[in-house]
Amino acid sequence: MIKVYGMAVSGNCWKAAQILGLTGHAFEWIETDTTRGDTATPAFLALNAQGEVPVVVLEDGAVLTQSNAILAHFAEATPWLPPAGLLRTRVLQWLFWEQYSHEPYIAVARNLITYRNQRVSQAERLAVCATRGNKALDIMEQRLCGHDFLVDGGPTIADLALYAYTHVAHEGDFDLARVPGVAGWVMRVASLPGIHGLRS
Amino acid sequence: MIKVYGMAVSGNCWKAAQILGLTGHAFEWIETDTTRGDTATPAFLALNAQGEVPVVVLEDGAVLTQSNAILAHFAEATPWLPPAGLLRTRVLQWLFWEQYSHEPYIAVARNLITYRNQRVSQAERLAVCATRGNKALDIMEQRLCGHDFLVDGGPTIADLALYAYTHVAHEGDFDLARVPGVAGWVMRVASLPGIHGLRS
Repeated sequence: MIKVYGMAVSGNCWKAAQILGLTGHAFEWIETDTTRGDTATPAFLALNAQGEVPVVVLEDGAVLTQSNAILAHFAEATPWLPPAGLLRTRVLQWLFWEQYSHEPYIAVARNLITYRNQRVSQAERLAVCATRGNKALDIMEQRLCGHDFLVDGGPTIADLALYAYTHVAHEGDFDLARVPGVAGWVMRVASLPGIHGLRS
Repeated sequence: MIKVYGMAVSGNCWKAAQILGLTGHAFEWIETDTTRGDTATPAFLALNAQGEVPVVVLEDGAVLTQSNAILAHFAEATPWLPPAGLLRTRVLQWLFWEQYSHEPYIAVARNLITYRNQRVSQAERLAVCATRGNKALDIMEQRLCGHDFLVDGGPTIADLALYAYTHVAHEGDFDLARVPGVAGWVMRVASLPGIHGLRS
């Protein structure tokens, strides 16, 4: 059976569980807590030298890393990833943008505030996260105030990648009431068949 | 004709020019200097609300952003991007890893040291860049000390994405003599037909 090494509160790990479920793959979840050193052991570093979760191990032993590459791997040839062409490129744009301009601010703020209790000691870093994270939400709003999903044609892995940390953004002190298009989209994605939220 | 808005010294912009050249597309380069505000004008923000280069405008007016999505767009159905399957997923893993764990340290250190003259004023941030950037080079070394390219089967856009800032990493005070597998790979990529270096 496919194995997923992941941390239940992580949005990046949620992506792996979610796309496996949506595409009909059974898997075993191996809870892997980065805060207690589970990703720093020699055994784990042999799986992923970067020392990060999620890690997916296929039945033949092949190891997949990088949450958005895992999304694309299992979405291939399903409605979650359009065939080659402009729509697929749009999906990839959102996936790269998520990892560079959204996750480093919204996921990091959530982690520092809600899981590390460092609101005071990391105040300077959190101010940067607030500015950049709200800019990211504004970019999403520009698209979502007039469209149901991030890419034309229906829900894709771009929506899954962005839903991961957007639907728990309040845990990083972000207020989705400010971006009603995004707030509506969160509810729309949540109501798709087979979507479950992060445990948080 | 395809238009590329880019900054000549940027590795991310180099990726767009390089894949267009390698796949036989003529294009017009529009030099767009982020340091003098070219990406903050209303006209530019209408193209890319994120205010970043590169931006590619296709002949039909479609706008592409995100350097690694641009690489994948033009590499589709060429030897630079393997067909769907594990090798393609490996390419995507490197592309996402580059944007999250390599570029934010190696490109940023290069910019602060060589282009912004902020070696002293940004010493604390540069110390983080040195640690994380050298970790990134170590991850590349694990692969490249025993393989010619990042993914089995020959050069791909994963090599282009990582070459972008690795071949100018000395401008961020990184020493490739420490990672001989990476140094050899830089020379190997540089010698591929049609590869040109960054102007730097």
